[in-house]
Amino acid sequence: MLIRVGYDIRYEIPAQVAMAAMLHIHPSRSGDLLEPDEMQTEPRLRVSTYIDGFGNRCARFLAPQGLLRLSGSTLVQCPDTPDEVNLTAREVPVEDLPDESLIYLLNSRYCEVDRFINIAADLFGGRTPGWSRVQAICDWVNAKITFDYKQARSTKTALDVFTERVGVCRDFQHLAITFCRALNIPARYATGYLGDIGVPVRLPMDFSAWFEAFLDGAWWTFDARNNEPRLGRILMAVGRDASDVALSTSFGQANLTHFFVVTEEETSAPARLIA
Amino acid sequence: MLIRVGYDIRYEIPAQVAMAAMLHIHPSRSGDLLEPDEMQTEPRLRVSTYIDGFGNRCARFLAPQGLLRLSGSTLVQCPDTPDEVNLTAREVPVEDLPDESLIYLLNSRYCEVDRFINIAADLFGGRTPGWSRVQAICDWVNAKITFDYKQARSTKTALDVFTERVGVCRDFQHLAITFCRALNIPARYATGYLGDIGVPVRLPMDFSAWFEAFLDGAWWTFDARNNEPRLGRILMAVGRDASDVALSTSFGQANLTHFFVVTEEETSAPARLIA
Amino acid sequence: MLIRVGYDIRYEIPAQVAMAAMLHIHPSRSGDLLEPDEMQTEPRLRVSTYIDGFGNRCARFLAPQGLLRLSGSTLVQCPDTPDEVNLTAREVPVEDLPDESLIYLLNSRYCEVDRFINIAADLFGGRTPGWSRVQAICDWVNAKITFDYKQARSTKTALDVFTERVGVCRDFQHLAITFCRALNIPARYATGYLGDIGVPVRLPMDFSAWFEAFLDGAWWTFDARNNEPRLGRILMAVGRDASDVALSTSFGQANLTHFFVVTEEETSAPARLIA
Amino acid sequence: MLIRVGYDIRYEIPAQVAMAAMLHIHPSRSGDLLEPDEMQTEPRLRVSTYIDGFGNRCARFLAPQGLLRLSGSTLVQCPDTPDEVNLTAREVPVEDLPDESLIYLLNSRYCEVDRFINIAADLFGGRTPGWSRVQAICDWVNAKITFDYKQARSTKTALDVFTERVGVCRDFQHLAITFCRALNIPARYATGYLGDIGVPVRLPMDFSAWFEAFLDGAWWTFDARNNEPRLGRILMAVGRDASDVALSTSFGQANLTHFFVVTEEETSAPARLIA
Repeated sequence: MLIRVGYDIRYEIPAQVAMAAMLHIHPSRSGDLLEPDEMQTEPRLRVSTYIDGFGNRCARFLAPQGLLRLSGSTLVQCPDTPDEVNLTAREVPVEDLPDESLIYLLNSRYCEVDRFINIAADLFGGRTPGWSRVQAICDWVNAKITFDYKQARSTKTALDVFTERVGVCRDFQHLAITFCRALNIPARYATGYLGDIGVPVRLPMDFSAWFEAFLDGAWWTFDARNNEPRLGRILMAVGRDASDVALSTSFGQANLTHFFVVTEEETSAPARLIA
Repeated sequence: MLIRVGYDIRYEIPAQVAMAAMLHIHPSRSGDLLEPDEMQTEPRLRVSTYIDGFGNRCARFLAPQGLLRLSGSTLVQCPDTPDEVNLTAREVPVEDLPDESLIYLLNSRYCEVDRFINIAADLFGGRTPGWSRVQAICDWVNAKITFDYKQARSTKTALDVFTERVGVCRDFQHLAITFCRALNIPARYATGYLGDIGVPVRLPMDFSAWFEAFLDGAWWTFDARNNEPRLGRILMAVGRDASDVALSTSFGQANLTHFFVVTEEETSAPARLIA
Repeated sequence: MLIRVGYDIRYEIPAQVAMAAMLHIHPSRSGDLLEPDEMQTEPRLRVSTYIDGFGNRCARFLAPQGLLRLSGSTLVQCPDTPDEVNLTAREVPVEDLPDESLIYLLNSRYCEVDRFINIAADLFGGRTPGWSRVQAICDWVNAKITFDYKQARSTKTALDVFTERVGVCRDFQHLAITFCRALNIPARYATGYLGDIGVPVRLPMDFSAWFEAFLDGAWWTFDARNNEPRLGRILMAVGRDASDVALSTSFGQANLTHFFVVTEEETSAPARLIA
Repeated sequence: MLIRVGYDIRYEIPAQVAMAAMLHIHPSRSGDLLEPDEMQTEPRLRVSTYIDGFGNRCARFLAPQGLLRLSGSTLVQCPDTPDEVNLTAREVPVEDLPDESLIYLLNSRYCEVDRFINIAADLFGGRTPGWSRVQAICDWVNAKITFDYKQARSTKTALDVFTERVGVCRDFQHLAITFCRALNIPARYATGYLGDIGVPVRLPMDFSAWFEAFLDGAWWTFDARNNEPRLGRILMAVGRDASDVALSTSFGQANLTHFFVVTEEETSAPARLIA
């Protein structure tokens, strides 16, 4: 399956400001790109890219005063099958976890693991460890939290989500991640493209958030918001929580004026592939 | 100057538990070690060490039920001069910061940068950028916050410190770090040994916390708690905040029963050096 | 000046629910009413009214499943002059405050006085006590907080307002009230009608919030949101904060479906007055 | 049963400060006093007393710079039976609650009812309404929260208690009160004397906190900390939470230097009674 992804994001910049963006496809998917994955800027800026400590491809640039447009598009080969499910995946005892996964057990800005140890134990401590426990967490979050775009705010933490019971997709994942970590299951925040392929309701397109849990030696995709295996999920960045993988960060003021994201199946094979 | 450092920490472990410890001297100080820096465990355990994403040397082990003792001691060569002061160090515009410093501008568990943008601008936005601004932050924190061991708690964030105005050394640093980041100055949390060499008041020894700010191309030591250049500071670990560099983390219950830390000038040169 | 006030509020009630409403004009304005101040309900319900501990006139009723409409209208005689300003009003030392004002120095749900003692002292401790200090508080809040309907939420406290710097009129008042109390100035939350008489910009009508501070033996109106003396302010209820004076409280689910408020100068004298 | 109660509390007052105290026996127990209930001050101060909006007897005075001592003692007749238990007491539908009880359904500083609606419904929504539900709340709080004097802090809210799971007696009651209110059961905070009569463990004496829930037309004593009917409980004050009934409040600095409370059964009948 070929998926066309892309974005067109515009800002009004009141005064020159340094910005960072995580709008590239994650390096783990480089082999699936059928077109170059480049970010265009208008005006044309000098953009430097680097791989951050989480393995994400980041872009940095200095945005001048005025209008700024970031855009890009690429074509990604995706499996014809939805997110993998492995019901027999076991939890890994902490002593056997890989070193680099340990950081995903710790606190982060939006995931106050230290305040959830007992809540998580009360709710999920008695569940069978492994895939089914992570799934039980997703089921709980999905059932208890109501989606509402109007109730988004940048300071909302897992504890806020737990008490307010409303939020957007990042909030669902933050709460689920925090429950996992509190139970010693490494969990990390993920952002990327998620089309509505094979899904009846079509929402306005946006980037999406989900999370990955470490079970049985590998990172697995979970999504407490949609809570069902989906086709065509394309990873852009992972991190400890939304703080680490903001699609754009401006170190000063930048006013978003336009936001367009596309994720669609490309049904006719592109010329490049045929050739 | 030679400084003898060491620790003897004991726990009562109710049931086998995985633990991690950051009790080693930081790799950046390896060249200053005059004795091996090894952690002993009682009972003798299989300990694996690794370097984490922040560059710290970490130890991992599985602690069995019963008593656990972690101890170690080494001798470190230190400059005869206190923490360096560079009054002319300038702030680096965000666009010129090294890639790897950017993460130290972001939110973390105890440093809610997103909630401090305006508070920091109100208090320090008008200050001359550079070393003197970071020093102004330290002066403010040092003047406004009262030290009180009895008011420590593991969930206390920079915002709690700002409102409660009382805390222990980690709390002083979390608040100062958050102010720095909110002003686009990279700042990271540091732990290590800090003796009371040349200081009149002698407190019971403990590990200490300070922070580093990135100015003029380098990381500089600041200490909002003591707020004066000190002799013999020996780094153990750096991270985004105290979550990342806990001296020990147990993924289950471990009850601290004994805690002893030493940091003293060793006045007679050790045999090894003479030979 | 005669002011016509009224409201038409509708709910969809999924299951029978007890409700309370504070939609009456405050008893202190009874003498200014030129028409009866009655709340109609559709369907017609048995409504009981009482005066609560803060002196407000409250209504209670049991709403049946289905549609519910609350409406009312009355005509109020108002002074032709705006909110009184008394620049020489002094702060009253706590020992001389009336007993019943002391509760307005204490903490309440949205006014965490205990967390603002030092912040208030830092910002306003050096100001000349009295009217000008309360005005300085209003000026600060008015300048620093941005109004945004979309950023309202029912759990937002003064501390949230202080860090997020955005909110609706209740948020402005909560922050100002908290500053006052932290400085030992009794302050209470007020709701009522506030027309836009004599004001250029006309917003969609809503109930409004302001606050009262106790100076020189009396309660005076302040409004950190509008921050200028206004014509035709008509009090409905006072309390410790918004928790105490919700225009309607349902002890179960009640979904607001329609909301209309009117506050207008009535230019032709009504028949009753002429007679 | 006769119970001797009393207190001796001393402060160091750095500068003249207004204070309020709630150290009197509650007016509802006036008929049980066998000796006058007077507060002595050293130095001798002009003290005025009044009944606050919650029905408590409060004292106010201006404390001069220097040492201050508040002391008092009285003898109270108490039933020979422990706190009454009424297992058949029903919850009162909100529409039938007395007007003056409604305020005890609302939010207050330490009881964030708005953040607990769903948590309370999850935990206790399925319980049989009435006495047994309030008892289930007390059982839960008593089982889940650990008592620790060293973990007290004045800003700790019900939500903090719920996440930290540790606190002192006021914290236990705040959490239980919040659960009750979230389920539409009026609940109010109470302070007073509680001896250890008939209880094996003898702790250092202190004032105590408990709470009252409104069931079946009356306020009943519950105590999530001790969680068993006790002898000789003597009420001093009730309020929405600890903010309203602080045993002393100083509107400026007052440093506590000595604290002594006594609550003991007086076995020999006093002269006054015999006569």
